[in-house]
Amino acid sequence: MARINDHFRKLKAGYLFPEIGRRVEKFRDENPGADIIRLGIGDVTEPLPPAVVEAWHKAVDEMSVRASFRGYGPEQGYDFLRQAIVENDYRARGADVAADEIFISDGSKCDTGNILEIFGTDNKVAISDPVYPVYVDTNVMAGRTGTADESGRFAGLVYMPATAANHFVPALPREHVDLIYLCFPNNPTGAVARREELSRWVDYARSNHAVILYDAAYEAFITDPEIPHSIFEIPGAREVAIEFRSFSKTAGFTGVRCAFTVIPKTLMGTADGREQVPLHTLWNRRHSTKFNGVSYPVQRAAEAVYSTAGKKQVRELVEFYLGNARLIREGLERAGLSAYGGINAPYVWLKTPGGESSWEFFDRLLTQAHVVGTPGSGFGASGEGYFRLSAFSSRANVEEAVARLQKIV
Amino acid sequence: MARINDHFRKLKAGYLFPEIGRRVEKFRDENPGADIIRLGIGDVTEPLPPAVVEAWHKAVDEMSVRASFRGYGPEQGYDFLRQAIVENDYRARGADVAADEIFISDGSKCDTGNILEIFGTDNKVAISDPVYPVYVDTNVMAGRTGTADESGRFAGLVYMPATAANHFVPALPREHVDLIYLCFPNNPTGAVARREELSRWVDYARSNHAVILYDAAYEAFITDPEIPHSIFEIPGAREVAIEFRSFSKTAGFTGVRCAFTVIPKTLMGTADGREQVPLHTLWNRRHSTKFNGVSYPVQRAAEAVYSTAGKKQVRELVEFYLGNARLIREGLERAGLSAYGGINAPYVWLKTPGGESSWEFFDRLLTQAHVVGTPGSGFGASGEGYFRLSAFSSRANVEEAVARLQKIV
Repeated sequence: MARINDHFRKLKAGYLFPEIGRRVEKFRDENPGADIIRLGIGDVTEPLPPAVVEAWHKAVDEMSVRASFRGYGPEQGYDFLRQAIVENDYRARGADVAADEIFISDGSKCDTGNILEIFGTDNKVAISDPVYPVYVDTNVMAGRTGTADESGRFAGLVYMPATAANHFVPALPREHVDLIYLCFPNNPTGAVARREELSRWVDYARSNHAVILYDAAYEAFITDPEIPHSIFEIPGAREVAIEFRSFSKTAGFTGVRCAFTVIPKTLMGTADGREQVPLHTLWNRRHSTKFNGVSYPVQRAAEAVYSTAGKKQVRELVEFYLGNARLIREGLERAGLSAYGGINAPYVWLKTPGGESSWEFFDRLLTQAHVVGTPGSGFGASGEGYFRLSAFSSRANVEEAVARLQKIV
Repeated sequence: MARINDHFRKLKAGYLFPEIGRRVEKFRDENPGADIIRLGIGDVTEPLPPAVVEAWHKAVDEMSVRASFRGYGPEQGYDFLRQAIVENDYRARGADVAADEIFISDGSKCDTGNILEIFGTDNKVAISDPVYPVYVDTNVMAGRTGTADESGRFAGLVYMPATAANHFVPALPREHVDLIYLCFPNNPTGAVARREELSRWVDYARSNHAVILYDAAYEAFITDPEIPHSIFEIPGAREVAIEFRSFSKTAGFTGVRCAFTVIPKTLMGTADGREQVPLHTLWNRRHSTKFNGVSYPVQRAAEAVYSTAGKKQVRELVEFYLGNARLIREGLERAGLSAYGGINAPYVWLKTPGGESSWEFFDRLLTQAHVVGTPGSGFGASGEGYFRLSAFSSRANVEEAVARLQKIV
């Protein structure tokens, strides 16, 4: 009989969000009248910016006429979009990235998972803790780990605790590692890394010949002008980093599906332990063999994010969510809770009151306040005793949720 | 330094279509005035059906209003589309497939590549020859092969020749295999498998506990009522088969991106050499961890393929391409060439004249007739001496290409 990939059996039973879904479902079945407010999963709630909608319609119309119809596009994405990204996301910030170093995709979740295919299974992987669960699970599936212990930590991974003590920016690993996941603004903690902190990571990666997998999906939420938006704003990063970006949270594209990954042509890996090979070449081969490009009209919709009108509308969208984040953070602080993030990020990370566990707080918040959040322990062992609230909701929902929350703590 | 996945180094230099692209580019640079007709890559040329365009616009409008905006959808796809598929593609043909056995994706190329992740690397893989190169390359990347020989055949794979002698339906392998790729209507040969031939494969898989990876991306082109459209029309297939389907060629979705994969819940693999595990569960885990669903408006566009108007428009589209295929096939035959396929498939597979190699014929066709086709040897060693012409073009282009071709042979 065909053998399965046995590494899948090491995965923990429930991916975090399905487990939350099950508990909410159960509560709703038992309390059909309850007005549940969801600040759990980080999904946008506001409609697409008008400039995006307009561009999308226009491109769909192109597809309805033979002369302007487009079939397969370049797997790496259309040049119009790659150029717009270079101009606006990189050149405008003094970062040196070329259009052909950008790979358009249908999501950062896909890219951060699939990127592992170009690396050998023998690389040592360092992961922040707490962390976006996909980084861990995709390494488990690929066979880079042993089994998990009681706390959910997998043998073979190097966990880097991010706690209030280090302002949620992990310390450099004491042992040698080859691949390092960093995410700033951070999901789930909402923390950002200052220029000097990122420089330390780039220096570490350079001296250890490591590769940084830098997830910048939330960069649009940075309000502090001193905080870098891209790892490529740091000198030397072109030799050590891959960056993941997304339109999901920036422009409300979670249901639209468009993202991109930057792999500088100067970034190398070792083949057979000796020869240096550009990772760009490998990913280009992977991308063109196992992917067929992003829907053409979606790429036009993404391009519109960089138009004059699009930029203004996206800024308003981001500021709206940041306004929510501020309300949540200030509301929690007024209730006497310790709250982090929410200034340069759409997530507020709170310390649960009275030493409650993350899931205990989840259940209490759900059953007493009818508010759904995300248990910190679901993001890793160091997230135990913390809780994530997302700013992606309507203003009215956020205000109501904060009021209810204040009542129960 | 981070180690790369060394298996990538075994891949042959150029994926087939980029190599064709390079040669065409070179010819065009040297002959700027040449009117090149492309019957090479299998990409559709006709605009989207009006019903699809209308549904797509409507869904984009929904995304522009808060009340109807949709963020993350189910990774497996929306129920409206999965239900439409069940009703029209399966129930209508007497095949037993449930909606939750369908996984909506952004392309069959992605799915046929990614599916390998749920299988152990120690499975023995059988591949038709000639074959869609993605099946081979993705197995190479995953480490299931040794290196390639002169003819391009990789050690460790079981190649099943498909030639004029067996009507391009390969014989059952003589050794035991675990995973079997079948594609009917076939790309590149245009061959179809009759019910009794498919039954033989299902029986083989059942007695060998093998899994058939059945690529039915071209099923819409079947004109012979006796030919099965789905492997699930064959009794017993639910225990041995995964089916890949696409809207790419059916409804002109190559630039739109929507496809689906069917994994029956009754299909098992072995874990640790003993326990049986449903492959559906594994793929569901992979799909929800490394994929974030297809663009919502694209799923609405795909749903419209099954509306009354959509069905009629798609049928017309398919018949138009089949008309092209008939013109090509008959034109080749009149020129004294042996031609296959083109009746239940959008591809015509021809024997090159006078023992020319596939690439020799490619170059001659390009330079003398300014027509681009695909060299059979690019699809595998048994494709040497054959050549693929695609019916995806305008009627005028097809007629002109046939006339030019007749002149040079």
